[in-house]
Amino acid sequence: MSTVKLWTDDEVAASPPVKAVFDDIRATRGSDFVNNFWRALANQPALLERTWSSIKEVMIKPGALDPLTREMIYIAASTINGCSYCIHSHTAAARAKGMSHEQYSELLAVIGMAAETNALANALQIPIDPEFTVK
Amino acid sequence: MSTVKLWTDDEVAASPPVKAVFDDIRATRGSDFVNNFWRALANQPALLERTWSSIKEVMIKPGALDPLTREMIYIAASTINGCSYCIHSHTAAARAKGMSHEQYSELLAVIGMAAETNALANALQIPIDPEFTVK
Amino acid sequence: MSTVKLWTDDEVAASPPVKAVFDDIRATRGSDFVNNFWRALANQPALLERTWSSIKEVMIKPGALDPLTREMIYIAASTINGCSYCIHSHTAAARAKGMSHEQYSELLAVIGMAAETNALANALQIPIDPEFTVK
Amino acid sequence: MSTVKLWTDDEVAASPPVKAVFDDIRATRGSDFVNNFWRALANQPALLERTWSSIKEVMIKPGALDPLTREMIYIAASTINGCSYCIHSHTAAARAKGMSHEQYSELLAVIGMAAETNALANALQIPIDPEFTVK
Amino acid sequence: MSTVKLWTDDEVAASPPVKAVFDDIRATRGSDFVNNFWRALANQPALLERTWSSIKEVMIKPGALDPLTREMIYIAASTINGCSYCIHSHTAAARAKGMSHEQYSELLAVIGMAAETNALANALQIPIDPEFTVK
Amino acid sequence: MSTVKLWTDDEVAASPPVKAVFDDIRATRGSDFVNNFWRALANQPALLERTWSSIKEVMIKPGALDPLTREMIYIAASTINGCSYCIHSHTAAARAKGMSHEQYSELLAVIGMAAETNALANALQIPIDPEFTVK
Repeated sequence: MSTVKLWTDDEVAASPPVKAVFDDIRATRGSDFVNNFWRALANQPALLERTWSSIKEVMIKPGALDPLTREMIYIAASTINGCSYCIHSHTAAARAKGMSHEQYSELLAVIGMAAETNALANALQIPIDPEFTVK
Repeated sequence: MSTVKLWTDDEVAASPPVKAVFDDIRATRGSDFVNNFWRALANQPALLERTWSSIKEVMIKPGALDPLTREMIYIAASTINGCSYCIHSHTAAARAKGMSHEQYSELLAVIGMAAETNALANALQIPIDPEFTVK
Repeated sequence: MSTVKLWTDDEVAASPPVKAVFDDIRATRGSDFVNNFWRALANQPALLERTWSSIKEVMIKPGALDPLTREMIYIAASTINGCSYCIHSHTAAARAKGMSHEQYSELLAVIGMAAETNALANALQIPIDPEFTVK
Repeated sequence: MSTVKLWTDDEVAASPPVKAVFDDIRATRGSDFVNNFWRALANQPALLERTWSSIKEVMIKPGALDPLTREMIYIAASTINGCSYCIHSHTAAARAKGMSHEQYSELLAVIGMAAETNALANALQIPIDPEFTVK
Repeated sequence: MSTVKLWTDDEVAASPPVKAVFDDIRATRGSDFVNNFWRALANQPALLERTWSSIKEVMIKPGALDPLTREMIYIAASTINGCSYCIHSHTAAARAKGMSHEQYSELLAVIGMAAETNALANALQIPIDPEFTVK
Repeated sequence: MSTVKLWTDDEVAASPPVKAVFDDIRATRGSDFVNNFWRALANQPALLERTWSSIKEVMIKPGALDPLTREMIYIAASTINGCSYCIHSHTAAARAKGMSHEQYSELLAVIGMAAETNALANALQIPIDPEFTVK
């Protein structure tokens, strides 16, 4: 049902710039499985390369936030953006990185609570308290 | 600019059900400051009471996610929902709970990256990989 | 702060197609006040005419839903779409059409509750029950 | 395709806190049918209990808005939030509460019209008329 | 899976106001194929007529933007609104109007980039530069 | 009102990695003016560098879509995402690249029309026609 062809491994093998990205995805993740997101982006090699390079920088490189926390933030954004594919792939990724049942329950509660209070604050058009602004 | 009156402390003092919630907000947070969100909800005492009770349960009660992680998830949801008030109040709350400059930088990067890939996945209408579904 | 000039009454008077719409707005509403939305659309006479004609059809013409119910539905949509201008203008319109304090409180509660359960249903990617589909 | 297991009646029967909520859903609605939303939330008993309790308060308890009006407001919010599950379940609920073909037609027209003018007002960044603000 | 019946050609033929719109859709497009969007709107003849009339005005009538550019703008809006049906139908329409593989690749890149910087600008609540406002 | 400090030119001059990006922005655009978006991102040099590099690739590099078309697509996405800053900055950019009054009028009409039909298609949950899918 996608708007573009999803590339098979044979098609990937025949395109050196796409193959280079797929090889790096497999090496970085230590797994042979490459999900449909990358097989769709393969139609646009420049976009594929730039997106994978940013994902590595933002989601995988060690930093101040642990990888599971980043995945949960990603799930929150994807839920509000209504991206069904992203919700599925990043919920699976968060579980693979150790998200417990209790953590997932609390993540859901925070996302739901935020959505409710966001709607209330927007409906009421509440002015920002001066205490919250950066001096 | 709000669609309702923001209650002053004098008005709060004159309404026992509203005063009870404000007293609990102050006691729970250990601070006299009560932000405009609650001063707007004071016009709807039942909604005020239910919302504060849920916020305590979801954002404050000890659980599997530390309070700062919950605030960052809240910021992500509020950003995508476009709630200016909530972005300001919860960025301030996250900082008060110790969010470092590096953590905030990475939070922003994840939110931006998620928004970009959400849009790409939606534009391409990518089908969900069977590997991501719950059996 | 708008991206276009807001037309004054003098400018409106000088443009027959715009003046015709403004005259009809004033006659239909029985009021001399014309809000900024129409003063901005005046820059695009065709869009102005088509939009006002649709608004009259959808929001004003007698039908199966009373005018106040329509305004509350409009507020719900505008809140989720994050349209600050529309929230302000239609909350004022709903009040002018008799929305009581209790009705507004319940409207807010429904909007907030819907936003929360929408987020939960999307986060959980719940499959639609066959009982809900049209045969 | 959900991210969690949907509880069967047998699984519900084996968990007293979940069973208590399901019993109340059935008693309150006077029907044995419990839709997937609650079967998904059953994985998080605290969230299940809090959400059902809020839904009863907001959508079922007698108040200033009749139940059908609340359902139509819910549909408007769910449509803009892009919650496919919620659109299906609340359109079915609205019909069960007596929504006529004419009322549904007008609901759709208002939702569509609001979305269009929301986009126009946001694109033009129209300043809020002082007449619309609360003094 | 729609919330309403999709009208067959036989049902259309039996309703003169619906048939008139379908005839005009076929004549205007020079094709016998009428997609499901119109078959769903057929349940609301007034909404059907008004929507088709606006679509002709906005998307088909010669103007300052060529038809393909309009389709790409439509895809961008539909993607962010999360309208799966609209993304599919307007991506097909853009291709039928000559959208090349390179143009589609760049369209995707712009939509993704916009979504990312929108999220960053909103998360940071950046004030509008005076240089950008209309004098 | 931003959540971070906006860097002055003196502060930029004192940070070599930030100065390098600002120098490139000025050289690429042939203008000394650097807008607030970049002054906010300066707090996160890695994000600043990656975002500017992507913007150059996506919005400035010659390609299959002319620069004005890209700006109009950007405005459409920013409008639906409710990014006030982005709507202002990219409407100004589109005008600087030659967007005529007529083109802007039609852009607005398409954005509004798309929002309306997106809402209708989502409210009706219309199934995708097989004719629209990629074989």
